[in-house]
Amino acid sequence: MELFSQSLHFDRRLEFADIEASIAHARMLGKQGIISKAEAGEIIRGLKLVEKEIEDGAFPYRPELEDIHMNIERRLTELIGPVGGKLHTGRSRNDQVAADLRIWLKEHTTYIVSELIELLKVIAKKVQDHQNTLMPGYTHLQHAQPVTLAMHFNAYEIMLLRDLERFLQCADGMDVMPLGAGALAGSTLPLDPASVARELGFKDFFLNSIDAVSDRDFVAEFIFVAALCQVHLSRLAEELVLWSTSEFGFVELPEEFTTGSSIMPQKRNPDSAELIRGKTGRMVGNLVTILTVLKGLPLAYNRDLQEDKEPLFDSVNTLSACLRIMRHVIDGLKINKDRLREALKDGYIEATDIAEYLVRKGMPFREAHEVVGNIVAEAVARGVRLPEMKLDEYRKFSGLFEADLFEALDFETSILLRNKSQAYGSGGKKSGKKAKKKK
Amino acid sequence: MELFSQSLHFDRRLEFADIEASIAHARMLGKQGIISKAEAGEIIRGLKLVEKEIEDGAFPYRPELEDIHMNIERRLTELIGPVGGKLHTGRSRNDQVAADLRIWLKEHTTYIVSELIELLKVIAKKVQDHQNTLMPGYTHLQHAQPVTLAMHFNAYEIMLLRDLERFLQCADGMDVMPLGAGALAGSTLPLDPASVARELGFKDFFLNSIDAVSDRDFVAEFIFVAALCQVHLSRLAEELVLWSTSEFGFVELPEEFTTGSSIMPQKRNPDSAELIRGKTGRMVGNLVTILTVLKGLPLAYNRDLQEDKEPLFDSVNTLSACLRIMRHVIDGLKINKDRLREALKDGYIEATDIAEYLVRKGMPFREAHEVVGNIVAEAVARGVRLPEMKLDEYRKFSGLFEADLFEALDFETSILLRNKSQAYGSGGKKSGKKAKKKK
Amino acid sequence: MELFSQSLHFDRRLEFADIEASIAHARMLGKQGIISKAEAGEIIRGLKLVEKEIEDGAFPYRPELEDIHMNIERRLTELIGPVGGKLHTGRSRNDQVAADLRIWLKEHTTYIVSELIELLKVIAKKVQDHQNTLMPGYTHLQHAQPVTLAMHFNAYEIMLLRDLERFLQCADGMDVMPLGAGALAGSTLPLDPASVARELGFKDFFLNSIDAVSDRDFVAEFIFVAALCQVHLSRLAEELVLWSTSEFGFVELPEEFTTGSSIMPQKRNPDSAELIRGKTGRMVGNLVTILTVLKGLPLAYNRDLQEDKEPLFDSVNTLSACLRIMRHVIDGLKINKDRLREALKDGYIEATDIAEYLVRKGMPFREAHEVVGNIVAEAVARGVRLPEMKLDEYRKFSGLFEADLFEALDFETSILLRNKSQAYGSGGKKSGKKAKKKK
Amino acid sequence: MELFSQSLHFDRRLEFADIEASIAHARMLGKQGIISKAEAGEIIRGLKLVEKEIEDGAFPYRPELEDIHMNIERRLTELIGPVGGKLHTGRSRNDQVAADLRIWLKEHTTYIVSELIELLKVIAKKVQDHQNTLMPGYTHLQHAQPVTLAMHFNAYEIMLLRDLERFLQCADGMDVMPLGAGALAGSTLPLDPASVARELGFKDFFLNSIDAVSDRDFVAEFIFVAALCQVHLSRLAEELVLWSTSEFGFVELPEEFTTGSSIMPQKRNPDSAELIRGKTGRMVGNLVTILTVLKGLPLAYNRDLQEDKEPLFDSVNTLSACLRIMRHVIDGLKINKDRLREALKDGYIEATDIAEYLVRKGMPFREAHEVVGNIVAEAVARGVRLPEMKLDEYRKFSGLFEADLFEALDFETSILLRNKSQAYGSGGKKSGKKAKKKK
Repeated sequence: MELFSQSLHFDRRLEFADIEASIAHARMLGKQGIISKAEAGEIIRGLKLVEKEIEDGAFPYRPELEDIHMNIERRLTELIGPVGGKLHTGRSRNDQVAADLRIWLKEHTTYIVSELIELLKVIAKKVQDHQNTLMPGYTHLQHAQPVTLAMHFNAYEIMLLRDLERFLQCADGMDVMPLGAGALAGSTLPLDPASVARELGFKDFFLNSIDAVSDRDFVAEFIFVAALCQVHLSRLAEELVLWSTSEFGFVELPEEFTTGSSIMPQKRNPDSAELIRGKTGRMVGNLVTILTVLKGLPLAYNRDLQEDKEPLFDSVNTLSACLRIMRHVIDGLKINKDRLREALKDGYIEATDIAEYLVRKGMPFREAHEVVGNIVAEAVARGVRLPEMKLDEYRKFSGLFEADLFEALDFETSILLRNKSQAYGSGGKKSGKKAKKKK
Repeated sequence: MELFSQSLHFDRRLEFADIEASIAHARMLGKQGIISKAEAGEIIRGLKLVEKEIEDGAFPYRPELEDIHMNIERRLTELIGPVGGKLHTGRSRNDQVAADLRIWLKEHTTYIVSELIELLKVIAKKVQDHQNTLMPGYTHLQHAQPVTLAMHFNAYEIMLLRDLERFLQCADGMDVMPLGAGALAGSTLPLDPASVARELGFKDFFLNSIDAVSDRDFVAEFIFVAALCQVHLSRLAEELVLWSTSEFGFVELPEEFTTGSSIMPQKRNPDSAELIRGKTGRMVGNLVTILTVLKGLPLAYNRDLQEDKEPLFDSVNTLSACLRIMRHVIDGLKINKDRLREALKDGYIEATDIAEYLVRKGMPFREAHEVVGNIVAEAVARGVRLPEMKLDEYRKFSGLFEADLFEALDFETSILLRNKSQAYGSGGKKSGKKAKKKK
Repeated sequence: MELFSQSLHFDRRLEFADIEASIAHARMLGKQGIISKAEAGEIIRGLKLVEKEIEDGAFPYRPELEDIHMNIERRLTELIGPVGGKLHTGRSRNDQVAADLRIWLKEHTTYIVSELIELLKVIAKKVQDHQNTLMPGYTHLQHAQPVTLAMHFNAYEIMLLRDLERFLQCADGMDVMPLGAGALAGSTLPLDPASVARELGFKDFFLNSIDAVSDRDFVAEFIFVAALCQVHLSRLAEELVLWSTSEFGFVELPEEFTTGSSIMPQKRNPDSAELIRGKTGRMVGNLVTILTVLKGLPLAYNRDLQEDKEPLFDSVNTLSACLRIMRHVIDGLKINKDRLREALKDGYIEATDIAEYLVRKGMPFREAHEVVGNIVAEAVARGVRLPEMKLDEYRKFSGLFEADLFEALDFETSILLRNKSQAYGSGGKKSGKKAKKKK
Repeated sequence: MELFSQSLHFDRRLEFADIEASIAHARMLGKQGIISKAEAGEIIRGLKLVEKEIEDGAFPYRPELEDIHMNIERRLTELIGPVGGKLHTGRSRNDQVAADLRIWLKEHTTYIVSELIELLKVIAKKVQDHQNTLMPGYTHLQHAQPVTLAMHFNAYEIMLLRDLERFLQCADGMDVMPLGAGALAGSTLPLDPASVARELGFKDFFLNSIDAVSDRDFVAEFIFVAALCQVHLSRLAEELVLWSTSEFGFVELPEEFTTGSSIMPQKRNPDSAELIRGKTGRMVGNLVTILTVLKGLPLAYNRDLQEDKEPLFDSVNTLSACLRIMRHVIDGLKINKDRLREALKDGYIEATDIAEYLVRKGMPFREAHEVVGNIVAEAVARGVRLPEMKLDEYRKFSGLFEADLFEALDFETSILLRNKSQAYGSGGKKSGKKAKKKK
């Protein structure tokens, strides 16, 4: 049972958060006269000793003490004597664990956010570099219309910016300090949670003590936001795997992010991208874990809540590793512009542009579609590409075709035109500004 | 295959959103001179006719046309002739579906928010009414410390307020208008997405056309927020089931929200609460559905995305029904104050208060715990409750006990004291104000 | 509340199962003398009238009666008078619902199994037809070694055969008749569940009445087996999408299982495959739904269990549709043998065979790998394919190379050799027989 | 990247399986003459040295070698020289990993099965001991009918027996030996997978080499079966938590499986049961993880598959710990028979028995229900229990009541009667035998 219920092997990660929270708690106890200032000082000194031991690798972890909190408190008392026993005054394991976890997660959310920003910078660089790199845009994985690689990468930028915003909202939600809630009912001692919140850098403290010890919304929300971010990474990873095939041949991953084979030295398996894609599984799994744990739990604290930490820690670890790996992969990505451009030749990808040409010349939309359909059918039958057909041939289908048609068939012109009329990709200056104002 | 791929049976729910979006699109086409103003006027008139038919139940739904969008467009052309064929100019099914879904969800999020507020009002009423209703506070479903029923209900208030905030954030995220993104690459026609966004009441329009047609973050986020809200309802539902047992006997659900038995007419099965608890399953299931669909999908539009609608519609339906039912259940809940108060007598629930009494008198926390532990052990051995022991008997354990001890043993005093020193429950005036300012 | 708790809109699917179970129950009541034989006969006659009404579309469904069971019982009494009220003797809604659901699912499992067999036949045909269709085998989506398309399709055959076996095991698990368990505690009436089980074609009846009304293992197990089968279909679907790209160009889906575009008539979006892949989401979601519903439910019947039906019905519908669609897609699949064979030229896919050639000539494995690595590196540097290098050139790397090397480089020979030494693909005669005996 | 992709920290668990498989592989290579017998002997001797080092804690794990397989192979070569390099002849990492995982899981499934049997024995003992312990049977957590605690425990026995059967089926499914499948395409060397399968105790070997390296059905299936078993444990755990409340007071968990409080020494929090219930979250999460990983993966091996191990290992660990803990909890469970019997007095629990009494006397079922409903209503109104009413009073409701009514009201008689007419609980001799024959 001891083995079953002990949590030291995973909650050790909270050790610095626990000491930080304990120092703030002790200081408040002293200020409020619940313990003497001297006692508070002594406890704080002791906690710093414990912290030093941990940093130095000299801390004696004892699994039989069940969790990191008891390990630290016990060690404190060994180091400074019985006065250590006063630290837990006006505090319970329930509010302590909640406080530690929030401190830890605030810090790690900041870290994830910074990793996300680093990845965004690398993608932004690609967007900048590939304004003129043409490629087929895909729907149903079929060639649909010409786009630029910049637009394609920018789509991921926008996704990740939404993730960033969600992490910031989520950081806001976890910024509530629960110390003072006790086991569930607060305390009759004159605690001052407001000052503890201030010292620990929390924006707010709890509104209800029962909720304070049983709320794990901040855990569930973080895990969801992380899972959705991972889903975005999995889409990019899928494309990297696809584009690395000899069939597509659009990109080469940097060598150190692939694995080779002694026998086929030219081979570069995109393992990094595959792992990122595969790790989506555990991120969704972690989300199910926490929601299933919480389902139908009566108030207030139940031991089931101990099951919140492992999925959270795993989601933090996994996402931060994947963000870092993806950054290096994208940064070092070798792009085969020729293959991308070559791919445009398949699929009669100019069809939509020709139809819009006719609409601009005044033909109704449905009619234009029909006319272009007939032209494509003929091109297929004759085995020619659309730009290879002559103006005369086009004019057999409609008198509206004129010499300027061939401009419309030009990929660069087509993309320029689209950039003018709507905002997308990094060309979307106007709405870009708008979005910035919004923040 | 037709049967397999058609979506009319569920996407019919988007019909009004589709017409609204189409009207805005047509008006913009006219303003921009892409079609004539007269044509735009004719199309808008026709769309209103279609809308009227739907309202009147006279619309001829045809599954063989696959989805609601084609049903409406076809009907439009039947009603106003070939000019109807111009509506789809500069638009694709991909941006159209995304727009309709966002319009629909914005509207339904507003509705969910209003349902949530109605539930909150009913709970707030209970908080107000039960400021003095004493009951045992539970940890591990064991009696831990005395609390008020107001504090307990207030914990749910706080949870649901967090949900409310999340729905509002989520509403913000979905407030981006995708029309103009076309199939994935925008359009060479001089569309004006900004004006369409304005007319449809969107705060913003898309930044990237590829993202605009393939982004379903707003769906996943809504489904998550709804699932977490349902998890909260499931916790309340679990307590209602528990409290309705003859063993607890704390509450009676209003008769119309229970089911009886012809043979045991006194029996009231808490079916409403059980169903709310059980429906957590599908809400978590819907979340897994959408995330699994999105995992590893290459850009841009893929038909897999059609699978976004059913889980979303189901989550909206389920949550709004559960919020409404829960409101009526709580509103009509008969609370047995005597049983609640009676329950306080079990479990030596005054122990923590006695320990804090000793701490206030200067005894170190760990020592106080030990002393009280011994007192409780004696009380258990003698089969008496703590308030039944005499001062003399207490003083055998510590000289710090004085006549004012019995005040500390008084539940009302204890709770008052805790309200004074920390903010919780509705007593938390200070922090309540703070939270309001935050908004 | 009526709307919230009624289930008629989905449990209507149990109507024939309900009548079948009721007939068997009534007959048993008569045989056991609990009601008279005449009464039993009259009830059975009435139930058949009800069945007829349903078949004829003449049955008056009334949602206000909550579920299909009450609808049928009420109608029975309307048709045959008060004796209808005796049908429910010795029966409760709890055991009745469980019985109906098991009858329904047994029938539908049989149907799914037959659909699975039909799909297997179609795949087996492809295996037979493509014994000699060479293609690159992939790992990490990179060319690894030559295989045949037969081997590739056979891999799916093996997967689906495992699914088939699981469905059969699962059918066995659901083959337990629960009628007689009553509300949860059996009955004091002399019921004969054994004879009811016999009449309904169940292999067994319940061992414990409490379990009989609260067990939903058979639902969870079916939903899992179906989800795993769908995961297999999703892998095949992914490959169909991939192979349909212009970059791969290995296959063309039959036209009626793709969607085109009026403007690009040559385009064939593989929507059927995308939908099958996407529907994996809901299948995994349904599994989470049922497990989350069951988590932490106390015995015996709780209303939460009503939530078992919709995910089950949806899994049955989805899987049977996907099996059927996949069958037609594979059946009509046009395979581009030339492109498959052409693809073999990329990636120095003969490398492993050369290494094994050297091992057969006596060179240690690790050395052989190194030698071949050097050869490939030179081929890459010189821009030649491996079969294009001369024997002399090979012999510079090792004296073990002889003229028979070029046989080893021949794909057909290589595959033949591998078929001889191990059992795989449909070439695995030996183990194939073994597997058959196993059944 | 090295850190990201290395798996040594978790795949170390496969070390003995890996050595076992390697020994069998080496022996086969020798027998087939692919390497010399002497070389095979030397390799086997070396592998045993490695095994000894691991057992002695002397093995030098090197994370930079990525996984346990490479660690072992490298160490082998250090110990026995270059001949170690011949071990990997005719083998690839892909088939090797699959083989190791199957060997490991077969062994651990056996272990789980034995733990399950131990738990079953303990529950069977309770069933035996509590044949005459009366208690209320619950539906909707409301008192419904009298049952015995034996019946209640037996319901869990039946559930766990189904789990046992599923684990055995699942063990059968994983009993397929994949060595010889190579990277995906088998080998041109004269390997003999049949003999390797025999030596390793596998019932069968692979039918298709592509499937052999990419199949993870056995992992998904195990994780599902384990999750469903955990769901059963969660239901029992929920009841233990409930029954430990002071409101129910039916049981006391053995002290070492509860946690106390220094201040409330009488308190026994049912932490063990709460943890078991809470751990259902991760078990369902693990299932989602593996299915999400597999969704849409093209054939054959992809690095995503590395993500199969952690959820599997976690499910094995979690379930085996929970089975063991539950066994001790049930074994040491103190049952308060008086409280159980006392609880029977609430809820007019005799109502169904009275109705069946009337049916036995010839009254139609619906009428009997109505009559009893009226009697209960009067009892409620008068505040008496049903056995306290006199025969005269009963006869006012129906002349069919006679003196033998009071026998029917007797709980023991009622249960005896029900045992006679149907099979349930351990009383179900007949069907018990039948079920045994089935196996």
